[in-house]
Amino acid sequence: MTITITAFEQSPDGGKGLARDTRVRWALEEVGQPYEVRLVSFRAMKEPAHLGLHPFGQIPTYEEGDLTLFETGSIIFHLAEHHPGLLPGDANARARAITWMFASLNTVEPPILELVTVKIVEGDKPWSKERLPLVLDRIRHRLNQLSARLGDADWLDGAFSAGDLMMVSVLLRLRPSGILDEFPSLAAYVARGEARPAYQRAFAAQLAINAQPPAG
Amino acid sequence: MTITITAFEQSPDGGKGLARDTRVRWALEEVGQPYEVRLVSFRAMKEPAHLGLHPFGQIPTYEEGDLTLFETGSIIFHLAEHHPGLLPGDANARARAITWMFASLNTVEPPILELVTVKIVEGDKPWSKERLPLVLDRIRHRLNQLSARLGDADWLDGAFSAGDLMMVSVLLRLRPSGILDEFPSLAAYVARGEARPAYQRAFAAQLAINAQPPAG
Repeated sequence: MTITITAFEQSPDGGKGLARDTRVRWALEEVGQPYEVRLVSFRAMKEPAHLGLHPFGQIPTYEEGDLTLFETGSIIFHLAEHHPGLLPGDANARARAITWMFASLNTVEPPILELVTVKIVEGDKPWSKERLPLVLDRIRHRLNQLSARLGDADWLDGAFSAGDLMMVSVLLRLRPSGILDEFPSLAAYVARGEARPAYQRAFAAQLAINAQPPAG
Repeated sequence: MTITITAFEQSPDGGKGLARDTRVRWALEEVGQPYEVRLVSFRAMKEPAHLGLHPFGQIPTYEEGDLTLFETGSIIFHLAEHHPGLLPGDANARARAITWMFASLNTVEPPILELVTVKIVEGDKPWSKERLPLVLDRIRHRLNQLSARLGDADWLDGAFSAGDLMMVSVLLRLRPSGILDEFPSLAAYVARGEARPAYQRAFAAQLAINAQPPAG
């Protein structure tokens, strides 16, 4: 069955790979599944046809036969459950890998997303400059804890898993801020993720779209 | 095998059921699994023994034989996967229920958590009052979308699932703010969740601890 995902017609990051379709592309490449991409404009994302696929009007979505999914966590878990390569076979190790998926999305990413709020969404507000250090300190707090857990291991729990795919993807959002460089072991962890051939293919695929000027 | 979870020795909400152990208690009650609770103080949560269980120094954790998990999403998924009652049998319906778990935690909860930031963490900052309406509007935006998708259905996708358990739990955090009452269908959805006998038992169990004055 053909897998079709959606992605931005033109990503706000201009091809840095931070749009969430890159996470799904990466997972698809890790498990060796071909896929098609349907590009959607910002306007189309808020229209009924797309909202039928994604109630929050975002990308990516995932269609496979009569199954439609949204939320990168859910899509990547679905791929990991149905194809080998992203979750360990041992039951306990599998449960821990899934734990890292949730930890990436619910514990590590929320403070990181506040960088977008303080710098862009509220970038023109009088408090923006004074608030930024508080947001950065909350991120550093999480990174300290994550770095302590990772130690000198290559991945969070044994072999590379969907939990690492998600954590690396979440941490990549910090690259433009420079804050990742304050944590050398995490910077190296992210670099190990980026070095994977599957990530390279996913990154190249999104760049091929976003490096072009928008149509029309 | 005995299941042991951790919870606050004394919850900051004084027993309103908003601490995350309530979510896990609710899931355990839905699937009919007995459990033990180990209470931890704020100080103990930041010490090595607890950080060994939970790298981010939070509650709840979950121990079952030689398996240790953290993150409510992961714990509830583990319970849902191993016991009937929280995920539908049909493969596509199951994938969609898991989607709602991730959507609750990664799309709906982050803007809601910003209420704590603006009101409490940054409550003494000069911008706090002026920022609050922006935070509330971002929450309203998500609630509008969620309300549109729920329509007049009882649950998000067919029968009650772990996706609803998580979404109701996330929305419950809004009750003190009054914002939930602006969305009658969502307020009714939350009330349906709270009316479930399993939720009632979970709520009573956490209240029995938190309504007491702290030991010592």
